[in-house]
Amino acid sequence: MLPDRAFFDLLADAARKETLPRFRVGADVIDKGASVFDPVTEGDRAAEAAIRALVETHFPDHGILGEEHGSVGLDREYIWVIDPIDGTRAFISGVPVWGTLIGLYRNGEAVMGLVDQPFTGERYFADGSASRYSGPDGSRVLATRDCGALGNAILFTTSPHLFTDGRKDRFEAVQREVRLARYGCDCYAYALLAAGHIDLVVECELKPYDVGGLIPVIEQAGGIITSWDGGPAEMGGEIIAAGSRAVYEQAMAILKA
Amino acid sequence: MLPDRAFFDLLADAARKETLPRFRVGADVIDKGASVFDPVTEGDRAAEAAIRALVETHFPDHGILGEEHGSVGLDREYIWVIDPIDGTRAFISGVPVWGTLIGLYRNGEAVMGLVDQPFTGERYFADGSASRYSGPDGSRVLATRDCGALGNAILFTTSPHLFTDGRKDRFEAVQREVRLARYGCDCYAYALLAAGHIDLVVECELKPYDVGGLIPVIEQAGGIITSWDGGPAEMGGEIIAAGSRAVYEQAMAILKA
Repeated sequence: MLPDRAFFDLLADAARKETLPRFRVGADVIDKGASVFDPVTEGDRAAEAAIRALVETHFPDHGILGEEHGSVGLDREYIWVIDPIDGTRAFISGVPVWGTLIGLYRNGEAVMGLVDQPFTGERYFADGSASRYSGPDGSRVLATRDCGALGNAILFTTSPHLFTDGRKDRFEAVQREVRLARYGCDCYAYALLAAGHIDLVVECELKPYDVGGLIPVIEQAGGIITSWDGGPAEMGGEIIAAGSRAVYEQAMAILKA
Repeated sequence: MLPDRAFFDLLADAARKETLPRFRVGADVIDKGASVFDPVTEGDRAAEAAIRALVETHFPDHGILGEEHGSVGLDREYIWVIDPIDGTRAFISGVPVWGTLIGLYRNGEAVMGLVDQPFTGERYFADGSASRYSGPDGSRVLATRDCGALGNAILFTTSPHLFTDGRKDRFEAVQREVRLARYGCDCYAYALLAAGHIDLVVECELKPYDVGGLIPVIEQAGGIITSWDGGPAEMGGEIIAAGSRAVYEQAMAILKA
């Protein structure tokens, strides 16, 4: 039996109980001793534990791939791919563009997914056939937009500093062609793309759990999400997401070069 | 007679009626004909008109400096400094980090101010002595934080591309010293600073209406906001805001160099 919307909501609500009370509290923020900045919070770990406990109870024969607590049963038909707090840097900075990402893979393909932003109260959910939004401004079915061409596109990436070596040149070549480039939104940018507010997201060095929950939300809203070489996005890496085929192909012509 | 909180709320609510219904609607987004990207929206103009009408009715002897509809009575004792939608690029991208900024200057000094984010329901208000927050997570008095040193600071700027010529080198020198640098938050970053979530904002090429509403919110929360040469921030330009004296002075030592 496949999970339904109610089960995804149960997972998101359980995660929210662990993340939201720790948002903007000021704890975990100063980490003077660490040589590398590592903003993993208690909320991250507690939210994933809450999600995993529910999955293990309701779907004991499913596998789990989580950011915080490792992997179980990756050879099973169904695998839950969990990022309890995607955008930990946004989280510790108080900016509500982080999100809880929950994806369900079947034989390696992302088939259902959820993005939840607890502070704004936004939830993006793909049930296998359609993507839906609910938030402070109501509920609706999501559809990406077609802005016609790369030159009309709004592009997001989390940070221009993500890109190193030849990837930097290729990213900047895409950036030069778009109408507007913005930084700093983590998973929220993909949700905005699914909702038809922006047109393109280009990133790299993503893990499977950074995209697993996002893929169905984008694809079932009519968008395209792949790796930079045109392969599946499910395993992360260098990722492009676009609202339309035209924008995707124009951006890919640059990224592949 | 000085305006009270209720009057500022009246202004913010009037602006919200014009901005929020136009947020994420998809109108005004594609502007193919324009050679320069100019995201001024109907909401921007309508919100400022609504604010100005209320000010003119209730405080007819006050001056007004607005982004959209020009200036009136700039030689008067009190001047309202209005940016109906600060962060128009965030607005058209669907990211709720834009805000309505309303400042009240007395003899050129910002004495009261308000930042409103209608989608998240956050409002930051400085009444002349204290800064207060209200939002989905309740209400509280705001206080900036002291992270101790620049090396512990979270820095925000809207875009690294704001900085040209020697300013770019100086900004990047500050950025190299901080714990975490983030982009893309417009006025919202200053609100986060007032609320003690982040430590430093460095920007340039700001207009008076980009900072007028923010100055009292930061100062009355215990923060510091000046130009890069240490002068008043009220006229915009190159702006630094810090949560504590220590961070401010360390950043200023670099920016002034």
